[in-house]
Amino acid sequence: MRSRGHENVGASVGFAGDEADERRLAWVYLSRVVQGPCAALSALIERVGVVEAARAVRECDLPDSLRGPTEQRRGIDCAERDLESILGSGGRVVTPDDPEWPAWRMLGLGQLDSARDPGAAVPLVLWVRGPRSLLTASEQALAVVGARCSTGYGERVTAEIVGDLAPRGWTIVSGAAFGIDGAAHRAALAAGAPTIAVLACGVDRPYPASHARLLAEIAETGLVVSEYPPGTTAHKHHFLARNRIIAALADGVLVVEAGLRSGARNTVKWARRLGRPALAVPGPVTSASSVGCHRMIREGEAVLVGRAEEIIDEAGPLQLSLPADAPTPERSLDGDEALVYAAIPRTGARIPLELSGESGLPLPSVRAALAALDLAGLVGCDESGWFRVAPGGR
Amino acid sequence: MRSRGHENVGASVGFAGDEADERRLAWVYLSRVVQGPCAALSALIERVGVVEAARAVRECDLPDSLRGPTEQRRGIDCAERDLESILGSGGRVVTPDDPEWPAWRMLGLGQLDSARDPGAAVPLVLWVRGPRSLLTASEQALAVVGARCSTGYGERVTAEIVGDLAPRGWTIVSGAAFGIDGAAHRAALAAGAPTIAVLACGVDRPYPASHARLLAEIAETGLVVSEYPPGTTAHKHHFLARNRIIAALADGVLVVEAGLRSGARNTVKWARRLGRPALAVPGPVTSASSVGCHRMIREGEAVLVGRAEEIIDEAGPLQLSLPADAPTPERSLDGDEALVYAAIPRTGARIPLELSGESGLPLPSVRAALAALDLAGLVGCDESGWFRVAPGGR
Repeated sequence: MRSRGHENVGASVGFAGDEADERRLAWVYLSRVVQGPCAALSALIERVGVVEAARAVRECDLPDSLRGPTEQRRGIDCAERDLESILGSGGRVVTPDDPEWPAWRMLGLGQLDSARDPGAAVPLVLWVRGPRSLLTASEQALAVVGARCSTGYGERVTAEIVGDLAPRGWTIVSGAAFGIDGAAHRAALAAGAPTIAVLACGVDRPYPASHARLLAEIAETGLVVSEYPPGTTAHKHHFLARNRIIAALADGVLVVEAGLRSGARNTVKWARRLGRPALAVPGPVTSASSVGCHRMIREGEAVLVGRAEEIIDEAGPLQLSLPADAPTPERSLDGDEALVYAAIPRTGARIPLELSGESGLPLPSVRAALAALDLAGLVGCDESGWFRVAPGGR
Repeated sequence: MRSRGHENVGASVGFAGDEADERRLAWVYLSRVVQGPCAALSALIERVGVVEAARAVRECDLPDSLRGPTEQRRGIDCAERDLESILGSGGRVVTPDDPEWPAWRMLGLGQLDSARDPGAAVPLVLWVRGPRSLLTASEQALAVVGARCSTGYGERVTAEIVGDLAPRGWTIVSGAAFGIDGAAHRAALAAGAPTIAVLACGVDRPYPASHARLLAEIAETGLVVSEYPPGTTAHKHHFLARNRIIAALADGVLVVEAGLRSGARNTVKWARRLGRPALAVPGPVTSASSVGCHRMIREGEAVLVGRAEEIIDEAGPLQLSLPADAPTPERSLDGDEALVYAAIPRTGARIPLELSGESGLPLPSVRAALAALDLAGLVGCDESGWFRVAPGGR
């Protein structure tokens, strides 16, 4: 049985008392200094630890690559006040030290090439409002995003798909925007399913303003999440960075409607780089709100889906088709093998080039991972490509 | 300038007087004997000539493989009467000896593996009504097929796409059925574009009966075509065989709407085996009449398209994007190289496995053809796959 309860929220792992507090304050301080993804800072923390990294930033004892990103706000040390403020408003900060930190979900972000895209970094912390554990709530999750200018058709399809996924234990992740985002959250709330809203501003700021009531409802039963500290207003580049967290927190990204210049395409890009399936719902070719979906399908960026069953086929965990007591290979894999395995759909086959595109890994790494997975008996290969082998034979 | 006129119809190539007549009677006799594709008979004709093949059938001087298919009707020799009857009704028979025989179009059918599918054979003759040359009318053609139970949406999209292709010199090929077929023919007639109806019965039989007037209109300005001799009624298996001719006569097959068990999928199968692009128009996922299109797109059997421009991108001749005086590589290629070249889209790249699927050729043949095309400077290769190189550089 899976627990969806609020477990050990706020407690630290492996750090007790003062040390835990010191680390938490360091995370919070750095979160306010950089406000968003900063691969150079993540690398420094990885190397010297968060407390030492915070000291280095505070004293400007930094390599050139970190002077710029920290310059503007390194003098602002309001970590204690930030912590008090978020706790006072019923929220909390979740750091990589916390048991509810969705470490597995964030793995992919840390493995992307940050030289190619400086936005490809694990968030330092996540500011959270809501009663659920972020870890368990995101255990089986679908991101549902799309056009702000949605149509009745798109909203209806969103409600139907979310309504079909909800009783099967899926969490719906979205961005709380007008249109499809809002429809997805509302459908999840209506179905009693957990829903996670990832914001591009502080979790204390209702954005868009007219969604204040929707966000309050989500915070009551689901989760409102942001990497931006309380009080931060939404800037344009925040939305692009936010989209990577939406993609990371889910097993796949579904776009229901999208215009030609929709931000949903950016979320899909993150999904693909993270090795998550990108899915899109088609619509009438006469509808401007489906043009973006059609382009993504046509150009091979997203797979066409129309029903919950097809979504589960693409994004669902392998164990759904297995006996309840069968081992789930994903859980025991890590690194490139986990990414490549995740990129192979439950049904059908993929060639290494496609797996490279899906997983974001270079072709030689994909081939190496396939060989290892083959030896482990988890995948097989025929003329149509590589496919998953269910435990006990295909 | 391309001629769309009625050129040399009825005249024979390279056979004069009595010999031409003898051959024509032999083709017509055999057409009535086998009524539909018969790869074994095509092979015999290839080996011994049509006149000798007709003698062998008439006298039952045959290998076992041909006794069955010819048994029922080899005693019926009404070739002269058939010829008189079709000419009397203003039609004609087009044989591979005739200048208007679309030899290039039929090439692919003759190259398919008839052991795998006995239906994969070039039609012996085509019975034709209408003022156009079959060769020139099918020079630049799109097959538009789909659900008999079409919706207003599907009919509107059909009319729009056909209306956009018509002024660009495209012929519309379809099967004269209810629904999308009828809408496609009507839109072509309305736009003054040539349209070809390929029937599963004799060209003197209006099928479906309530399309008698539509077929009469098509026969006035376009072409009504069948491989079945006059008087033949439509049988179920005729429709599947007919679909291969629809696919063969066109540069690509477009499915506008299709239910889950639509015959359009069979036409798409033929298109793929012939190396022609298979295209499908999406629609609302709530529409039963789009389910088949969505499945074909989802499973990679067809490419999603929504507008005439996208169709031309996939099915259009290369020269559209080149200066008018540029050479057209397709015209100078043949065999596997032509099939592989045709399988590479005008924009974007394909990997050999995909080209194998598209062209119906085994992987080693695809690789050999790519090497030859590369040497000829017609294709290039990068990490995304093989792409076309326009003369004078990409």
